[in-house]
Amino acid sequence: MNFKVIDNGVTAPKGFRANGWRKGKYGVGIVYSEKNCTGAGTFTTNKVVAHPVVISKEVLKKNRDRLRCIVVNSGNANCFTKNGYEDGKRMISKTAELLNIPEDSILIASTGVIGRKMPMDIILSGIEETCRRLKRESSNHNFALSILTTDRFPKTLALEFEVEGKKVRIGGTAKGAGMIAPNMLHATMLSFITTDIKIDPEELSVVLQDAVDETFNNTVVDGDTSTNDTVFILANGESGVRYEECPDLFKEALHYLCRELAKMIVMDGEGSTRMMEVVVKGCASKEDAIKASKSVVRSLLVKTALYGGDPNWGRIAAAVGYSGAEMDMRVMDIAISDYRREVYLVKDGDPVDEEGEELKMAREIMKGKKVKIIVDLKMGMYENTSYGCDLGHDYVTLNSKYTT
Amino acid sequence: MNFKVIDNGVTAPKGFRANGWRKGKYGVGIVYSEKNCTGAGTFTTNKVVAHPVVISKEVLKKNRDRLRCIVVNSGNANCFTKNGYEDGKRMISKTAELLNIPEDSILIASTGVIGRKMPMDIILSGIEETCRRLKRESSNHNFALSILTTDRFPKTLALEFEVEGKKVRIGGTAKGAGMIAPNMLHATMLSFITTDIKIDPEELSVVLQDAVDETFNNTVVDGDTSTNDTVFILANGESGVRYEECPDLFKEALHYLCRELAKMIVMDGEGSTRMMEVVVKGCASKEDAIKASKSVVRSLLVKTALYGGDPNWGRIAAAVGYSGAEMDMRVMDIAISDYRREVYLVKDGDPVDEEGEELKMAREIMKGKKVKIIVDLKMGMYENTSYGCDLGHDYVTLNSKYTT
Repeated sequence: MNFKVIDNGVTAPKGFRANGWRKGKYGVGIVYSEKNCTGAGTFTTNKVVAHPVVISKEVLKKNRDRLRCIVVNSGNANCFTKNGYEDGKRMISKTAELLNIPEDSILIASTGVIGRKMPMDIILSGIEETCRRLKRESSNHNFALSILTTDRFPKTLALEFEVEGKKVRIGGTAKGAGMIAPNMLHATMLSFITTDIKIDPEELSVVLQDAVDETFNNTVVDGDTSTNDTVFILANGESGVRYEECPDLFKEALHYLCRELAKMIVMDGEGSTRMMEVVVKGCASKEDAIKASKSVVRSLLVKTALYGGDPNWGRIAAAVGYSGAEMDMRVMDIAISDYRREVYLVKDGDPVDEEGEELKMAREIMKGKKVKIIVDLKMGMYENTSYGCDLGHDYVTLNSKYTT
Repeated sequence: MNFKVIDNGVTAPKGFRANGWRKGKYGVGIVYSEKNCTGAGTFTTNKVVAHPVVISKEVLKKNRDRLRCIVVNSGNANCFTKNGYEDGKRMISKTAELLNIPEDSILIASTGVIGRKMPMDIILSGIEETCRRLKRESSNHNFALSILTTDRFPKTLALEFEVEGKKVRIGGTAKGAGMIAPNMLHATMLSFITTDIKIDPEELSVVLQDAVDETFNNTVVDGDTSTNDTVFILANGESGVRYEECPDLFKEALHYLCRELAKMIVMDGEGSTRMMEVVVKGCASKEDAIKASKSVVRSLLVKTALYGGDPNWGRIAAAVGYSGAEMDMRVMDIAISDYRREVYLVKDGDPVDEEGEELKMAREIMKGKKVKIIVDLKMGMYENTSYGCDLGHDYVTLNSKYTT
């Protein structure tokens, strides 16, 4: 790694402040920059789309180089709601007034229940309190807590690297536990990234989309694409370093940050007890590699086998088989690993001996917290890595009683 | 209905016999015709494909107008197994010898665990015992029981209609409870259909594919496409009625039979407590209608909401939204029904009042055994109906401990 991990998430980069507030299931969080930022966003592709997504797209279209602030609420998705557009606008105008910044410098995001009216009294008083706190102190921790819904832990990370003696920082905070299967594209997954590099918004947009495609879009908790998924990045240039001075390093750090946040989301998958990293290599095309690896992390049978700690490789093979990827079962390999040991369950199309040592070791590996599954199709040179989690009783309990 | 429901499943049509045998988790079942039959089959599209599927395709290619028999085993899928092809062939040669019929008149199917060697001693002695029983008596019930795996009940139905005083019968028996998401195409779903109509094999093949597309391929239990899915139909002509005399009636009866068997499979979805029928209409194309309706029955969030009896329509809207179907959330309707009452949860894009009577009634409806969900996209004239079930704790328990 050409960068180091530092504390303080979104508030690590110079010139950014954040704070948050919670009351029962509702929360409000704000990220604020003292200077104008360039910004970019990626959003859900669900055609049922939440009002904050519509509004933030409008803001980014109009004004992506004079951004100052992100306001987030949890507890209500503001999706499929009467007057939801106006409610989103009120969140913005209230924040603009309290922080004395232009309305069109503010991005918003929401997460929570769909189809319920926004409890605007609660949200607006949350914005007031958060602004008050923000002026007094900056707390990435409060911000990270404020945006959670069914999450079990806050998700935050920051990185730092140097360019000719000057420090550049990238910080990120994410939430997401259920309704996860991003294609930036699904299940309320929110992630907010700040950086003090100086970068053109057009460039920033490309770099962000790239990182999101490789990381967040490769995670699946339940395969349901949310109506609210959003990743924002704000860059205020305060480091004094321009992107052009270190494009590869910046991209590498951004990918790393997004990948680690994506893994935290999967680790916090609703009711999950184990995480899986699925590498499918030797594919005829990148599309095939994506299809096959996502098919495995999405398979309910693989997910329940993982929950049971059962190395049921037939289910892995079947999930690759129905993914649509070009393959020949007579040549494929399937291996699993705990990052220390790797064991083949299928080698050149031949299944492992039912009584052998391999299956015994595989059983141990499948009982760990992190399991790596490696499939080699031997059809070409492309590969992809997807992240998923097991499906246990708690997922069912949580989601059968969520609400409406 | 232009036909009536009768007893005895696959043995209802004239000239067919069946029987079966079970020992622990293993079973063998045989369907036998005294006369030569024309036959057709539809199979899984999974690229990891079981040996019996490969073998039966070969038989049908070579000999689809002199078929006599179907042999099925449960307990082992004979998929991804060393010598599995030879083991399948041995099932055929043993049966051919015992029943004194040509080897190439026999179709086979298997269901059970993937990647385990076939316990040929058990299977061959099962074939012996089943043939012995078959000669003594005919029992659709024994056959239906012999092919089950995690199923909770046998699935069988027969229909009869008359053409100019002559009776025509169609009988079917199915199994399937997990790994279900057919596209004739997934999760071991086996169905065996017999009829005494006289029909050309080419015609039979088209008619069967049509019925399967509309029925079995619209069911989803877990979204995992099996390596073994098979539907066979055998027609022996014993009714004295030719297909050309009643094409519409035959097709109608076959669709009805397949739809009812498909619903039984869904009702028996592993660990399921409720069934859902999802109609998506007003679609811009048939493809859109299929995508949208399958997306809803496949959604884990919809399935868990159904388990909890929670009319969480936001999840239905979101599943339609990410299906890829053309839609505009501002005009769509969502209604649910218990087949007596129908209540709108979204009308012309407006969500129902949170405190209103509709939501109260919706809660009652969602607690029933059968729930119908109707979505109108108002984009065109196409519609599709898919069938699914809820996802409960028992699904997780069953599948986390299944085996390997």
